[in-house]
Amino acid sequence: MGATGAVGAEFVRLFESRNFPIEELTLLASSRSVGKTLPYKGRPVVIKEATEASVQGHDIVFFSAGATRSRALAPAALESGALVIDNSSAFRMDPEVPLVVPEVNADALTKEKRLISVPNCTAIILMVAVNPLRALGDIDRLIVSTYQSASGGGAAVMDYLVEDTRAVLQESDRPQKDGLPPYAFNLFSHNTAIGDGGYNEEELKVIEESRKILGDPALKVNVTCVRVPVLRAHTETVTVEFKGLAPSEDQVRTILETAPGVQVIDDRARNHFPTPALASGQGDVLVGRIRADISNPHGISLLIAGDQLLKGAALNAVQIAETYRQKFGN
Amino acid sequence: MGATGAVGAEFVRLFESRNFPIEELTLLASSRSVGKTLPYKGRPVVIKEATEASVQGHDIVFFSAGATRSRALAPAALESGALVIDNSSAFRMDPEVPLVVPEVNADALTKEKRLISVPNCTAIILMVAVNPLRALGDIDRLIVSTYQSASGGGAAVMDYLVEDTRAVLQESDRPQKDGLPPYAFNLFSHNTAIGDGGYNEEELKVIEESRKILGDPALKVNVTCVRVPVLRAHTETVTVEFKGLAPSEDQVRTILETAPGVQVIDDRARNHFPTPALASGQGDVLVGRIRADISNPHGISLLIAGDQLLKGAALNAVQIAETYRQKFGN
Repeated sequence: MGATGAVGAEFVRLFESRNFPIEELTLLASSRSVGKTLPYKGRPVVIKEATEASVQGHDIVFFSAGATRSRALAPAALESGALVIDNSSAFRMDPEVPLVVPEVNADALTKEKRLISVPNCTAIILMVAVNPLRALGDIDRLIVSTYQSASGGGAAVMDYLVEDTRAVLQESDRPQKDGLPPYAFNLFSHNTAIGDGGYNEEELKVIEESRKILGDPALKVNVTCVRVPVLRAHTETVTVEFKGLAPSEDQVRTILETAPGVQVIDDRARNHFPTPALASGQGDVLVGRIRADISNPHGISLLIAGDQLLKGAALNAVQIAETYRQKFGN
Repeated sequence: MGATGAVGAEFVRLFESRNFPIEELTLLASSRSVGKTLPYKGRPVVIKEATEASVQGHDIVFFSAGATRSRALAPAALESGALVIDNSSAFRMDPEVPLVVPEVNADALTKEKRLISVPNCTAIILMVAVNPLRALGDIDRLIVSTYQSASGGGAAVMDYLVEDTRAVLQESDRPQKDGLPPYAFNLFSHNTAIGDGGYNEEELKVIEESRKILGDPALKVNVTCVRVPVLRAHTETVTVEFKGLAPSEDQVRTILETAPGVQVIDDRARNHFPTPALASGQGDVLVGRIRADISNPHGISLLIAGDQLLKGAALNAVQIAETYRQKFGN
C-alpha cells in the first residue's frame, strides 16, 4: 500500500533482489494511480485502489502512504489476519506496537503483535550506528544534527529540488512548493510543525522513538533536523555521551567494524568518510569521523549516513517481515 | 590583494556601498590576472601584479589570497607603514596579532598592532551569535555542526558545484576537482587535513579561534565541519551550554534581538527560520530556532546562518578597518 511513492518503488525492487518469498504481489495506491504499473520480476504489475476490501486477504501488508492512510486502512488488514508492517508514524508510539530496527531490537517482536511499526528514517539510521556502542558503556545523551535529503519528503519533494535547481541553472522562473522555502542550493529547518518547546515534529520523533527502540525512557537527546539539497540518503553528526568515561576511539571503531548493518568508512589520510552519495543504494549505515569528543571526556563523535529510502524505510520494513517469519513462521 | 577571488569582488562592492574613504584604490592579484578589471564607482580598475613592491605605499592593505601569499607579502606591506588586514589563517594564532570580530572584541585592537587577522568564516558567524549570550551567564561549552557553502572554498569550488550539478541534470560527464568528492546533491566532511585527534583543520580553527576571540582559553568546543551543496552562506546548528542554569529562551531572544550584527528570524508558526538563501548578501548573522536544550538544563540551542563572503570575510575585514580608523585615525 503506497506503491507509487518513492519508498513503494524500493519495496518492489527489494522483494526481487532479496528473493522475498512472494506467491502473489498486490500493489495498492490511491485512486489516481489505479492502472499504472510497476515491474516485478520482468512483468508489469497493475496498481489497484487501496480500500478496506483490497487490503484484506493478504499474508503481509506493508503500508507506506502516510499516517492518515495507515490509520484508515491498517485495522481492516489486521482484522483479516495479515501481518501489518507500517512505515508511517501512525502507531509508532502506541505501547502495544513494537517499533523495530531488526539489528537493534528484534526482541521487541512477539508472535501475537501483528502490527509492527517502522521507525522514523532519521531514528533508524541513528540507532543502527549508536546501539552497538551500548556494549561499551551506558549512554547518557545523544547530540545530533541532521542533513536530511529530499527523499524524506517523498517523490514530490525530490522533484521540487530537481526542478528548482534546473530553474536556477537555466535562470528561468522558479517553481514553488506549498510551504517549502526555495530549495536549490539552499537548506532549511525541517518543515514539520513546531511544538511549544520549540522542537519540530521530526525532532520529537527522533527523541521519542530512540527512547522506545533502545528501551531507555531516560535517554537524553539533543537534536536539530535540517533538510539539505541532497536527493537521497540522510547524513547525521552524532556525539554519544556515556555515563562513565567514554570508550576509546579504537574500542568504538572495533565494535562498529563488526556491528550488523554498519559499514565503517573512516580514512583520515584520504579524507574519505561517509557521504550521501556513498550511502545511496546501500543497505548499510555508513559510519566515519570516529573520534573522541575534544570537549568532553565522556563523548565520542561520529559522522553517519544511510539511505533514507532503504534502511530508513523499505529495507527496514522488509527486514522486519523476514525476521518475524524466521522467528514465528507466518 | 586577492582581488579576483570570490572575496575580492565583495571587497570592491563593499568599498563602494559603504562609501569607504578611498583616495586611490589599487587592486592586486597573481600574475595571471594582471590586466583584468573590476568595476569601482562606475569605472574599471585594472588589476596589477602583487609583489613586494606593489603591496607597499598604501595606507591600508587587505590580504585575501590564502596563507602562503599573506606570509610572503604582508611583511613588506607592514614595513612600508600600512595597516594590514589579513583574511588568511597565516597570523591568526600569533599572540601578537589581534584576531577581531568588531562586534565581539574591538577592544583587542590597539594603535600599535598594525597587522590584524580576520578569523575563519565559520568562527566569525558563530561568535557574532554566541558572544551576546555571555551577558546572561558564563559559557562552558559550544556544540556546533556546520553546513558550509562552496564559497568557503573560493570561486573555483563554487564553479565546481555549479558544473557538477549541471552535469547531473543533463546526464553528461561529471567534472572532477582535486581531492573533492562528487558535489552535486551531495555533502562531505570538510576537505581539510585531519590531525591526530581526528579533527580537521577547519574544526581546529573554529575551536582555537573562538577561544582567542572570546579571551577564554578554557572554552570547550565540540564541532563537526561539513561542506554542503549550497553556493553561498554558512549555516550552523549551535548548542550553548552555560556554567550555571541556562537563561530562559525569552532572555536569549531578547538579548539577541538587540545584539549588534544579529538579526533574529524565528517564526515558529510559519516555520520561517534562517537559511543560506536569506543570509546571502546580508551583513547580519541570522539567528533562529531559539529553544531550551531538551536534553540539558544548562543548554540553549540555535540555528544560525551568515554570508561567508561578507560577514565571514570581506565585510568583517572592512569593519575592522573602519573600527581601527574610528579609534586611532590612520
